[in-house]
This record gives sequence, C-alpha cells and structure tokens, in this order.
Amino acid sequence: MTFDREKASLDMIQAGRAFYQFGWLLGTSGNLSVRASDSTFLITASGKNKGELQTDDFLLCDLRAAPAEPTIHKPSAETLVHSLLYAADPKIGAIFHVHHLDAALCSTRDEAEGETVFEGLEMIKGLDIWDRERISVPIVPNHLEIPKLAEAILGAMTNVPSVMVLRHGFYAWGQNAFEARRHVETLAYLFSYAYRRPMS
Amino acid sequence: MTFDREKASLDMIQAGRAFYQFGWLLGTSGNLSVRASDSTFLITASGKNKGELQTDDFLLCDLRAAPAEPTIHKPSAETLVHSLLYAADPKIGAIFHVHHLDAALCSTRDEAEGETVFEGLEMIKGLDIWDRERISVPIVPNHLEIPKLAEAILGAMTNVPSVMVLRHGFYAWGQNAFEARRHVETLAYLFSYAYRRPMS
Amino acid sequence: MTFDREKASLDMIQAGRAFYQFGWLLGTSGNLSVRASDSTFLITASGKNKGELQTDDFLLCDLRAAPAEPTIHKPSAETLVHSLLYAADPKIGAIFHVHHLDAALCSTRDEAEGETVFEGLEMIKGLDIWDRERISVPIVPNHLEIPKLAEAILGAMTNVPSVMVLRHGFYAWGQNAFEARRHVETLAYLFSYAYRRPMS
Amino acid sequence: MTFDREKASLDMIQAGRAFYQFGWLLGTSGNLSVRASDSTFLITASGKNKGELQTDDFLLCDLRAAPAEPTIHKPSAETLVHSLLYAADPKIGAIFHVHHLDAALCSTRDEAEGETVFEGLEMIKGLDIWDRERISVPIVPNHLEIPKLAEAILGAMTNVPSVMVLRHGFYAWGQNAFEARRHVETLAYLFSYAYRRPMS
Repeated sequence: MTFDREKASLDMIQAGRAFYQFGWLLGTSGNLSVRASDSTFLITASGKNKGELQTDDFLLCDLRAAPAEPTIHKPSAETLVHSLLYAADPKIGAIFHVHHLDAALCSTRDEAEGETVFEGLEMIKGLDIWDRERISVPIVPNHLEIPKLAEAILGAMTNVPSVMVLRHGFYAWGQNAFEARRHVETLAYLFSYAYRRPMS
Repeated sequence: MTFDREKASLDMIQAGRAFYQFGWLLGTSGNLSVRASDSTFLITASGKNKGELQTDDFLLCDLRAAPAEPTIHKPSAETLVHSLLYAADPKIGAIFHVHHLDAALCSTRDEAEGETVFEGLEMIKGLDIWDRERISVPIVPNHLEIPKLAEAILGAMTNVPSVMVLRHGFYAWGQNAFEARRHVETLAYLFSYAYRRPMS
Repeated sequence: MTFDREKASLDMIQAGRAFYQFGWLLGTSGNLSVRASDSTFLITASGKNKGELQTDDFLLCDLRAAPAEPTIHKPSAETLVHSLLYAADPKIGAIFHVHHLDAALCSTRDEAEGETVFEGLEMIKGLDIWDRERISVPIVPNHLEIPKLAEAILGAMTNVPSVMVLRHGFYAWGQNAFEARRHVETLAYLFSYAYRRPMS
Repeated sequence: MTFDREKASLDMIQAGRAFYQFGWLLGTSGNLSVRASDSTFLITASGKNKGELQTDDFLLCDLRAAPAEPTIHKPSAETLVHSLLYAADPKIGAIFHVHHLDAALCSTRDEAEGETVFEGLEMIKGLDIWDRERISVPIVPNHLEIPKLAEAILGAMTNVPSVMVLRHGFYAWGQNAFEARRHVETLAYLFSYAYRRPMS
C-alpha cells in the first residue's frame, strides 16, 4: 500500500486539535506519528503547538530517528521512542504521545506498584481488548537520556497498547492513526476514572 | 408523519459534536439513534468517532437490530438495546447512549444501592419531571452478552427516562432527538452534582 | 437611546454559546435577557438550547412577563424574575441566569449560612467592586411558585449584582449585556474557587 | 528587526482565544503584551473580553505605561507591571498574564511558603529548563497599588519565567509571543498537577 502523506497529516492535525482542546498537549508537549513504510514514519516537528498544526509541520524520519528527507524541521528528542517502537513491531502503524494530567497523577500515586490498574470498566473494549476484566498500563521511569527511555518503554511493552512514563505522559499506538487516536481517548478516560474513583 | 432522514442525521451530528467536546463520547464510544417508523430507526454506525460524524455514518435498522437497508455499515453490538427500547415503548423517538465519567464514578459508589439518587435539584425539571423532589436512575450490571444487557435495561426502566449500566455509561431517551439531547445533558449535570456533592 | 434588537440578540447568542461550552447551560437550562425600554426586555424563548441560539429565538416581554409583541414563542416561567428585577432597578440593562455546577455545590454546602463568601480574591474586581476584600452572594430557597421565587430574589438583592437560588443556579445582572456577561464569568470563577479552596 | 504589528496582534488573538476556552481569562480578566521596540510594547486594551479580541483591541504603550500613539483605548492598570518587566530585562519579548484557577488555589495553600514547588515533572522542560528536577514559582502579595505590585513582582523574579500574585493570577514571559504562550500553558499544567497531586 502506498503512503498517503496528505491523509496522514490531516489525521494528525485533527487528532492534535482534539487532544489540545481537551488539555492533553499543553505547551507544545507531545508528539504524533504515522508509519510511512517499513523503515520510515511521518512525525510532528519539534516545538510546534500541537493544537494548531499545519500541513508542513511534519517530517519524514527513519528508524534511527534521523530525517529521511530534506527538511527545515528538527525531529524532537523523543522521535527515537517512535523509531524503536516501529522497528520492534511491524503491526504498529501510528504512535501518539500525550501529556495527560490524570495519567501523570496516577503515575505518582501508583509509582511503587509500577502500573496503573483498570478494572471492570466497559471502556477497556476501546483498546480492542474483549476477554479481560482487568488490565494495566506499565509505568517506566522518566530517564533523561532518550535512548535509555526508549529502551525502558520497549522493555515494558505488554499486549495493552500503551506505556506510561512517570510524571511525564503516555505513549499509545495502533495499526493506523484512527486506532491510535481511539486508544489515546480511551486511555484518557481510563486514567481519569482511575484517579477519581471512589475509595472503598 | 414521514421520517426526515436529513434532519435526524443533522440532529445526531450536532448532539454528537457537543457531547464529544464535553468528553462524554471518547474513543468512538456511545451511540445515537432516532426512530424512523414503527419498526425502524436510524443509528450511528459501529466504530465511528461520534464527535466528527458525517451524513453517511448512519444506517437504518429494524427492531431485531438488523440493517433495514443495503449498507456498507455494521450496526454496533449495542444496537439491540435500542431495538428493544423502541419496541417496548412507542413514545420513544430517540435514544442516546454516552460514556459520562461522573456517571461511571457514581455507579461504582452506588453499586450496592442499585441506583443513584438526585434530590432537591432544579435540574430534575430538565427531565420533564415537575412533581417530585427526589428521583433516581437505576444501575444495572454490565452484562457482556448484549441480549442479557438489553433485558436488564428493559427490566429496570422507570418513569425517569434513563438507565445506567455499571462502570459503562447511561442510556437516555425522549420523544425526539431534541428531548433526548436535553435529557442527556440534564443527566450529565445531575451525575456530576451527585459525585461531587458535599458530604454532610 | 433606541434599542438595537440585532445587537442585543447577537450579544446573547455569543454569551450563550460561550456559557454552554463551559457547561453552564446544559439541557436548555438558563435564560438571558436584555432591556429594550423602560417597560420591555428581549428574552430567550422557553425550551431552546442556549448554546445554539438563532436570531429568532427571542421574544419581547413586558414587566408582567407577558409577550409585548406578536410571537410564536412562549416566555419561560422564570421570565417573571427578569420582569421584577428590571422593574425594581432602572439601572439594570441585562440579566443572565446560568446553572453553574460549582455554584449549586456551594449553595448546598453554605445553605445554613445563607450566603457564599468570597474573600481576598482579585476577581472580585470583575464585579466592579473595588473597595472591599470580602463579599458574598445570598442564597435564597428554590420556591416552586415563580412569584414567590421572584420575591425572594428581590428581597435578597445586595450591592453585589447576583443572587443564588439553592441547588438551582445564579442570576447576575449589569448595565448592559457586556457587563452582565462579565459578571457571570467572574462569579463562575469565584464559585469554583470557593468550592475547591483548600481547607485550613 | 522591525515590529510586525499585525503578526503580534494575531498571536495574541489566538493565544487569548485558547486561554479563554480553557477558562483562564474569565470576565475580561488578564492581559497580553508583545514588545514592539526597546521602549514600547503592544498590549490588550482595558476591559476587553480576551477570548474574542479584534485587531483594533490593542494599544502601543511606553515604559511608563502611557499610550505611545493616539488611541481611543485605555491601558489597564496592570500595564505598569508589563512596563517594568520590559524595562528590567531586554530579553523579554512578550508577557502574558492569566487568571488560572488552580494557580490561585495553589497560592492560598502555599501562601506561608511563599512559593509553589514543582518537582520531578517532565513538563518543567516546557519552560526551557533542562538541568533541574525541582523548580518553584514565587508568590507575591496582591498589593492594591499597582506600583507596589509591580515592584514586588520585579523583586521576586527568578530564572523561572513566572511570578504568581496571591489569589490573583500569574505572569509569564518569554522572548516572543510563541514562547510566552508555551510558558503559560506549561505553568497551567504544572499548577493543576501541584494542586491535585496525591498526598503521601
């Protein structure tokens, strides 16, 4: 299948606008990418406001996180996380990373457990998980060195399509931009429920 | 009265956009329907983002939840709940189902009581209830098998136009799309009040 | 000064849209009015979604809350509150009534005191009050009979341009639509602060 | 470099709209400015709704907070704070002041400490601070006399680009409008985290 750059950009522009308006991408935080081929992906350029993305705010990168085309843009430091995830799993078609406040709050509360647990919630199905009542998203330390961070995320991956970085934000992925967006929104709901749930 | 499909679609597109922006339809969750005839209704297709619905994101279904027209769309599993509600009460003209976070939190807190109570709140009138100070929305278990879920919802129906499914979301209905939307928004307020109210 | 009906409608359409998006006018709740003359005012018709008002969703009423022009619209029951306020104070040029959740929560918490107190907050100046560190909004019971409710509101009026109705919503007024909107937004902030403030 | 007034206005219009929709500029509160030269800056006029700014809602002021051009507008009282900050640091290119609710709540909770502390949060990097795990924003009293307030803010400035005024709002600045907006959004996240964080 050939890569439709215009569609991929539009999908990220729309997802970015929605996530920004929900407050999950404040201060140019976060980054969004869509796979372009076995060895390349289109990703938001460093330092852009993700709620007001333009068609030319993206750049093509390779699996070592280097630009794969002539570009005026700088890839963000975290592009390497995207590279390693695309390299690790050929089924991943899109990766979205957001700075969701309730997720960050959960990560602090659940730091010792190393995971945030979601149980008995219908919304779990939004992750395309139909056979389990109880799932969790692993929490990894927020290493300053991006290669270490990327390794930690890779090492923590489970069959739940997300990893949370401590007091930072979560990565979520899917087979395409539509699915990655659904996963991000579903996780946003799950983390908000988990932080506000009544204590028994 | 003949069914105006364009108006019904537009009503659902606008309601979907508003509910999505309030965060009640994250991750393609929820579904919206409007009755088309004694034995058919127009419903959102499975797997769509309900905040960005297009005119052709709907399909006509019958009271057994099967498509009543040639269509590329799949009805969602929960279409059966809509079918049974339309069959049970001919006055129901529209059914909206949303994944409201505070409602889910209330359902966990109030699981043992089997209902969430709203008392002394002016907004109760938004449900067209003028003679009672105290009402409640019943909570039913979230059965995995949709026929069982639909039966539980039918069995729990009261004269308050809503049933809550445990840690899932609520269904609300009305004589038409306008009324169903008013009921959803009113219940959203009531559930938020109920979860945040000061404890005495 | 002649009354500019188009401008008054537009001011209310814009205020309604903003308030709705903040969640203060859910379920067709609330009503907005602007004075047209000594003895008439333009007010939102009963039962409209206040976030999607159209130019013809208003009607002119007199100080007994009756239509002052041929109209297809019904004035809402609460129109009488507007009438009495316009009659009581000729400086009032606009009255907005919203169903603000944190205000309703404050009213329940502060019911015994009969007022919600705001102290030491810069935002008090948004009510055009510059000489006091501590103000309060009175809370009146939510009488079912609108004439009794209107009388209670009139009787509770202070030099703070707002009265809260218990577990219902607040009325705020100003010399014109711009000022009334500023007062509503300022009070929304103050009630949210008051409900969430740290306990000492 | 010549000053592009149209671009500066547009940057503030967009930032104002976004901040207003997040609820940080309710009731005409806050003010936004961009430096025009060594001795002048463009600032929002007093009393405007900052979410619906128009191109002509700005005026050029000098470093004594007086208009530097013929104008129908009044500078707001707080323009003097902007003047002193621009005079104090030639690297400051834009100053945004918002009334953020969680920041006000933090200021009350942290009044005795005189600062709100942010620790171990990835979002600190949004302030262009890469070498510290722990930063704080100083809290100054909310003097009624603006010259005293401006002096207090100047005296409290650290290498974190923000000062919080007690139960009022925070000022944030940057080398240009883009950076100042990023700092405001980053601080909004940090204050919200700080007010809601789990207690150990």
